[in-house]
Amino acid sequence: RLIDLIEPLHAADVADLLEQIGGADRRALLRLWGREIDGDILTEIDEAIREEVIDALPRDVLAEAVRELDSDDVVDLIEDLEEPQQEAILGALEDADRAAVEQSLTYPEYSAGRLMQREVVTAPEHWTVGEAIDFLRAEEWLPDQFYHIILVDPRMHPVGYVTLGRLLSSGRVVPLRDITEDSFRTISVLQEEADVAYAFNQYHLISAPVVDEDDRLVGVITIDDAMAVLDAEHEEDILRFAGVGEDSSLSDTVLETVRQRTPWLLVNLLTANVAAVVISQFSGTIEAIVALAALMPIVASMGGNAGTQSLAVAVRALATKSLTSSNAGRVVRREAMVGAINGLFFALIMGAVGYLAYGSAMLGVVLGMAMLINLVVAALAGVLVPLMLERFNLDPALASGTFVTTMTDVIGFFAFLGLATLILI
Amino acid sequence: RLIDLIEPLHAADVADLLEQIGGADRRALLRLWGREIDGDILTEIDEAIREEVIDALPRDVLAEAVRELDSDDVVDLIEDLEEPQQEAILGALEDADRAAVEQSLTYPEYSAGRLMQREVVTAPEHWTVGEAIDFLRAEEWLPDQFYHIILVDPRMHPVGYVTLGRLLSSGRVVPLRDITEDSFRTISVLQEEADVAYAFNQYHLISAPVVDEDDRLVGVITIDDAMAVLDAEHEEDILRFAGVGEDSSLSDTVLETVRQRTPWLLVNLLTANVAAVVISQFSGTIEAIVALAALMPIVASMGGNAGTQSLAVAVRALATKSLTSSNAGRVVRREAMVGAINGLFFALIMGAVGYLAYGSAMLGVVLGMAMLINLVVAALAGVLVPLMLERFNLDPALASGTFVTTMTDVIGFFAFLGLATLILI
Ligand SMILES: [Mg+2]
Ligand SMILES: [Mg+2]
Ligand SMILES: [Mg+2]
Ligand SMILES: [Mg+2]
Ligand SMILES: [Mg+2]
Ligand SMILES: [Mg+2]
Ligand SMILES: [Mg+2]
Ligand SMILES: [Mg+2]
Ligand SMILES: [Mg+2]
Ligand SMILES: [Mg+2]
Ligand SMILES: [Mg+2]
Ligand SMILES: [Mg+2]
Ligand SMILES: [Mg+2]
Repeated sequence: RLIDLIEPLHAADVADLLEQIGGADRRALLRLWGREIDGDILTEIDEAIREEVIDALPRDVLAEAVRELDSDDVVDLIEDLEEPQQEAILGALEDADRAAVEQSLTYPEYSAGRLMQREVVTAPEHWTVGEAIDFLRAEEWLPDQFYHIILVDPRMHPVGYVTLGRLLSSGRVVPLRDITEDSFRTISVLQEEADVAYAFNQYHLISAPVVDEDDRLVGVITIDDAMAVLDAEHEEDILRFAGVGEDSSLSDTVLETVRQRTPWLLVNLLTANVAAVVISQFSGTIEAIVALAALMPIVASMGGNAGTQSLAVAVRALATKSLTSSNAGRVVRREAMVGAINGLFFALIMGAVGYLAYGSAMLGVVLGMAMLINLVVAALAGVLVPLMLERFNLDPALASGTFVTTMTDVIGFFAFLGLATLILI
Repeated sequence: RLIDLIEPLHAADVADLLEQIGGADRRALLRLWGREIDGDILTEIDEAIREEVIDALPRDVLAEAVRELDSDDVVDLIEDLEEPQQEAILGALEDADRAAVEQSLTYPEYSAGRLMQREVVTAPEHWTVGEAIDFLRAEEWLPDQFYHIILVDPRMHPVGYVTLGRLLSSGRVVPLRDITEDSFRTISVLQEEADVAYAFNQYHLISAPVVDEDDRLVGVITIDDAMAVLDAEHEEDILRFAGVGEDSSLSDTVLETVRQRTPWLLVNLLTANVAAVVISQFSGTIEAIVALAALMPIVASMGGNAGTQSLAVAVRALATKSLTSSNAGRVVRREAMVGAINGLFFALIMGAVGYLAYGSAMLGVVLGMAMLINLVVAALAGVLVPLMLERFNLDPALASGTFVTTMTDVIGFFAFLGLATLILI
């Protein structure tokens, strides 16, 4: 009866189901139902449990399942598997398919070469619409999904493409060359997948030919796979931003999760201790005016929040290539201005609070000045740190909260306690 | 000469250029080059400067530009404009197009009805491949991009679709009904655009028919627009997560930026003052042992970071629908375990630091215990707060750092100073 419930589900939903139930239920379900599993389900399953699922399947079921897949899906399925599992799957493929997959695997991880499918539909550039249609109708084998016919010259250089819609609505005698699309652009096999996803989104591409170093056609990338990459890149950004290893998954065990999160917490521990050292330099001041101990976290926390705001905006703008060297100067100035205005605003509020709650005008002034300084520093750090990381070809999202909040903690405590020492003592 | 540089650019790149140069340069460029602008550029331009660009264009250029657009692009272009600008653009359209756009505008913002294009290619369900091809070839007008022929019954209910690839590779006598795709699913006109984007990504859709409350076909959504929504949803998530108004853009002025960021900073100011009040309850304790003032931010900061980690994982998992009621219990238990293990680990480290740096074993014990408590609270808050927001139909990403770090600040200070008062005083 369980099987009757699962059978009508889409492969992606079955995969989600397998991810969401616990390990024991998953093994039981695979034992009961494993023989029905097909290739689409395997490609949808999260990497965190893929090995486990593949191991649970009988050899012949696995072989059957992978034989129906496009080459890009086989590559995605096996690229992170252990050698023996890889061999088992490659061995199940027909020779031509295996060669296609092995070719893709020679390209670097996260490159266009790993993302493309080798199954392409091409036509000589001099063909007419009629010739192309007759060819398609006669062809035994065509990919499941294709949206363009790619025109190639005799040396397999792609020179343009025609949408199937144009093909269908044009007369048989029209040369394909006359109805190619303006949107045509090729992708280098070595291009990073994140840039591929950007190009699809920016230029509304549906599919794009992939070329090798000699500009020869080696495959095609379709938008559904580009969309999945875009989604994965966002996951990476938000998780890195929060200081979590980007490979995290809800199916990870407790220990895997600890392992992903501890490194950044260790970094934070170190930097928090730096802030503690800063504070302890002022223990005389705190001993004299103990109210400072209660107020100093306000300055630090406001700086941390304002810095995180600038940081999120900058990380996102870098990811969408809307923050570039041409406008970086203007954006930095804007952030500084925003920091100054917010700083003044909150300086006034907290100055008043300091005065009213503690009856000391000078305490209010110190609080306000520290707030102003810290909010300007926060705004600048939030945009400069990711810009610097980008300059050094590091992922700007690595400027996770940790860096910026450390800076605003240290500056916040130092400015507040330093000013207090100068002015109040 | 500038014009020669811009002319060959893709509309999306021209739009980016207009966004990235300053306001004065933008006005100058539009004066020089405005007559050449076409509709595609307008739809690509960020909402923050769209009104400004539209206002700068001569009426006839604007009319010419919008007339070439699909209805979904016109809707996207005008939905956020002021009434008079909307009227000017609607007035430029042909009657049928204007009716289509006005129909879309009757659906709620961020619904499938706003995202769909009204231009659809349909065929009666009883047609053969040959009839469909003859129809396409004879049809004067077809959308720029279409990927399926939607089969409809006599009352315009969509009953399936055929990819153009299948159409081209099947014999003329084959009934369309025999070559429809399994992936077929309709989208309700009232569905939220975020759910539409999720469905496209989850089910690898390329286009999907949109139906009204009576299941009648009213339009079609294509994957390029769904991909743009997915991207915008991610922007919203990361910005909300960091406490920034989700409408922020790099072209915003300083004052607009201040307005977007101040509300969350105000919330944070309030909550930081709560933490200050907590601390000031223990001023006697701090006066007695001033080292506590330097150590307490370590406990708070570690909690803040650990909480942000759990939060990012939970927000992302909710966005991808991989955290559901069926596994929420397991995920919460996992987070609690992770918090406890990390808590023990860092309790030991900081306990040792407390002992070594300050020569007091009991101070080390207090520090360690407070750390353990705060990391467990952080892990739980990070996952429970977004789950609760989701339960109340609020965006879980609104559980921006602010909430969780407030909680970890307050608990961290209270646990540390409270334990210190009990044990050390
Ligand atoms: Mg999934
Ligand atoms: Mg796929
Ligand atoms: Mg992969
Ligand atoms: Mg694919
Ligand atoms: Mg990546
Ligand atoms: Mg990235
Ligand atoms: Mg903090
Ligand atoms: Mg753009
Ligand atoms: Mg569009
Ligand atoms: Mg819109
Ligand atoms: Mg569209
Ligand atoms: Mg939304
Ligand atoms: Mg959302």
